[in-house]
Amino acid sequence: MNEPYIRLLYQPDLENPTLICGLPGLGNVGKIAAHLLTESTKAKLFTELYSPSFPDYVLIDDEGICRPPRYEFYASETQDRDLIILTGDVQPPMEDILAHYEVCGKVLDFVADYGCRFIVTLGGAMESKPEKEIYVAATSQKIAQDFTEKGAAIYKGERIIGASGILLGLAKERGIDGVCLLGSTRGLTVDKDSAFHLYKFLVRILEINI
Amino acid sequence: MNEPYIRLLYQPDLENPTLICGLPGLGNVGKIAAHLLTESTKAKLFTELYSPSFPDYVLIDDEGICRPPRYEFYASETQDRDLIILTGDVQPPMEDILAHYEVCGKVLDFVADYGCRFIVTLGGAMESKPEKEIYVAATSQKIAQDFTEKGAAIYKGERIIGASGILLGLAKERGIDGVCLLGSTRGLTVDKDSAFHLYKFLVRILEINI
Amino acid sequence: MNEPYIRLLYQPDLENPTLICGLPGLGNVGKIAAHLLTESTKAKLFTELYSPSFPDYVLIDDEGICRPPRYEFYASETQDRDLIILTGDVQPPMEDILAHYEVCGKVLDFVADYGCRFIVTLGGAMESKPEKEIYVAATSQKIAQDFTEKGAAIYKGERIIGASGILLGLAKERGIDGVCLLGSTRGLTVDKDSAFHLYKFLVRILEINI
Amino acid sequence: MNEPYIRLLYQPDLENPTLICGLPGLGNVGKIAAHLLTESTKAKLFTELYSPSFPDYVLIDDEGICRPPRYEFYASETQDRDLIILTGDVQPPMEDILAHYEVCGKVLDFVADYGCRFIVTLGGAMESKPEKEIYVAATSQKIAQDFTEKGAAIYKGERIIGASGILLGLAKERGIDGVCLLGSTRGLTVDKDSAFHLYKFLVRILEINI
Repeated sequence: MNEPYIRLLYQPDLENPTLICGLPGLGNVGKIAAHLLTESTKAKLFTELYSPSFPDYVLIDDEGICRPPRYEFYASETQDRDLIILTGDVQPPMEDILAHYEVCGKVLDFVADYGCRFIVTLGGAMESKPEKEIYVAATSQKIAQDFTEKGAAIYKGERIIGASGILLGLAKERGIDGVCLLGSTRGLTVDKDSAFHLYKFLVRILEINI
Repeated sequence: MNEPYIRLLYQPDLENPTLICGLPGLGNVGKIAAHLLTESTKAKLFTELYSPSFPDYVLIDDEGICRPPRYEFYASETQDRDLIILTGDVQPPMEDILAHYEVCGKVLDFVADYGCRFIVTLGGAMESKPEKEIYVAATSQKIAQDFTEKGAAIYKGERIIGASGILLGLAKERGIDGVCLLGSTRGLTVDKDSAFHLYKFLVRILEINI
Repeated sequence: MNEPYIRLLYQPDLENPTLICGLPGLGNVGKIAAHLLTESTKAKLFTELYSPSFPDYVLIDDEGICRPPRYEFYASETQDRDLIILTGDVQPPMEDILAHYEVCGKVLDFVADYGCRFIVTLGGAMESKPEKEIYVAATSQKIAQDFTEKGAAIYKGERIIGASGILLGLAKERGIDGVCLLGSTRGLTVDKDSAFHLYKFLVRILEINI
Repeated sequence: MNEPYIRLLYQPDLENPTLICGLPGLGNVGKIAAHLLTESTKAKLFTELYSPSFPDYVLIDDEGICRPPRYEFYASETQDRDLIILTGDVQPPMEDILAHYEVCGKVLDFVADYGCRFIVTLGGAMESKPEKEIYVAATSQKIAQDFTEKGAAIYKGERIIGASGILLGLAKERGIDGVCLLGSTRGLTVDKDSAFHLYKFLVRILEINI
């Protein structure tokens, strides 16, 4: 295995799905929010992504079964709006910049094949005194405004690091629109409150029936 | 040399061999156990693997002869069950994740050509008070159970790092089954006792005549 | 995205343009000087360069709009001497040597297509007591002399690190001439004075009408 | 520039030349010895090797002329035994293992084209109380003995790091014989004495007329 590869478990019937991405990160806010969404929409695991830039170990479950770390794509076909929810065990290591670009490019290739035209990446925004704010950055001014009208605040940090940022940046290059939504968090430990708050915002703006 | 390469010394006559892998690691348990197995089965060196991800030095023996670090494959054709025993001087450096995947992929390609359908990786499991336990992780629940019935305990660590883990993870991806057997060890120094214990377990479950 | 790529915004009409390069670096002297030149020559952004070796984040502006870090090429067609001015958000990380060579090679490929035969790279030279000196290093003795006659001093540092140096080194390999001009600076903070001094020197030797 | 490349300055008339390699390293013993040999044999620079794994700066000489760091190949055609002497400004960074293998492979490809069948790499061996010993490691026992009979001692270090070791290791893989000769040195500073001692040994065993 010299490059990321995709394993399709089954072929879902998706029409112009929105990609929702929540990977491990600050306070695990994004990953937990994505997990909550997967549960509430009864989304089904349909694809796994493996990469040689993921850590060089295998994960062992309680029954002694091993598997390499991976990204997981879940399909939600039951809503008015089809969703692909991306979550995973890990991100490539911070310093492996090329790997970040490579894996994010692979993800966008994959979802583009399903006609995905919009992506939402989820993460945490570090604050010393977080007040349950949702911050937004977007691929265009119009989209940023749409989200501020729905209650989010423009993200004033200068940059967004990791998959949440790179996916958005690369999507924009390809003509795919999107937003990054960040739940305010101290980020020192797993922050389920911030994740739940972000999840609820997401459900509202996506008009999901749960 | 830009990628791992294989040097075949002679062509052994192997039928669906089991791969046994013991490389340098915690307490050198795996490597020593593999060495003991090579000795007792009179297995013969038939292939060397070199890689540009191995350290950038040459090894010098007592007579001043140099050679690059390498992996070595030994063939045991004298048992009911043919074996390929993999051992080596080194592993790729911890932080070179891609190299781990690349070398392990090369190993699996190589043994697959001989019809290998099962692999056993050997290593050490760190414990503050090791009690000569053998731990097991496997590619399926059935295999894990087979080994617990033979006296191993399910490995409760969350991950297995390095070749012992990656080989198993990549094997599973290719539809090859396998187990990782870990001898309990303090791991601070070379642990010949743990290695011998692991070796004896291995001989018993492989039903090897020595 | 696995390698640097170029996005052409419009095709300027340039005849044997001189490349002026000012990227982030010591005291930001080079980048600011390049910015001043872009402003005063009313140069227009015509090309962007993106690279997977640039940092793995996206930049967010005041309105929440994100974009990946990039290099920017500006075209100045209004002078007797056509200019391509290269500036950017970042440089590849210090330790990623291959990325430096790769991106600089890409830049030279790009400007060579416009018939560029001369390059000027801009930067800062660290001094404990800077005295508004302009230092020069060049691809040939003749060019170095030309610039010392115009008031620059031979650079006595032993090496020039990063794009300012590599661009010049690679240009020389390709038979393209050039100089590196370094404004003396303490380099601890952004040094607008040194940048302005360097800019004025540049305008004078390029005989630019502003 | 994405890989090492060779620039031929002129085509020397060499018959089965011996490669002598002295690059920067411990006490700079090898590089200085190679330099002395170049001077005394009036060897001429005929080829340069550049690599994107060399440091990302350019070197500036006293007249302000810049050039990228490089390896240099000198040809000595005036002796009974033709020589290619390899020296250089740098080695790839310690941690870039792949670069070491890649550059050394390129060197061996290059000298093999001239019919080179034997290589001598030069370096320093660290000792707290060096006694002007010359140590040897070789690609075969016979060659090691040849050199011990001429006054060298078998090297008892376990490994030889960097180009001196890798060149020898890769040469052996290709069926080219060779030795590494190490001058004993404290290695804390440039050690001209050790280098001169190594150079004299080299001249004697190569039967060079100076």
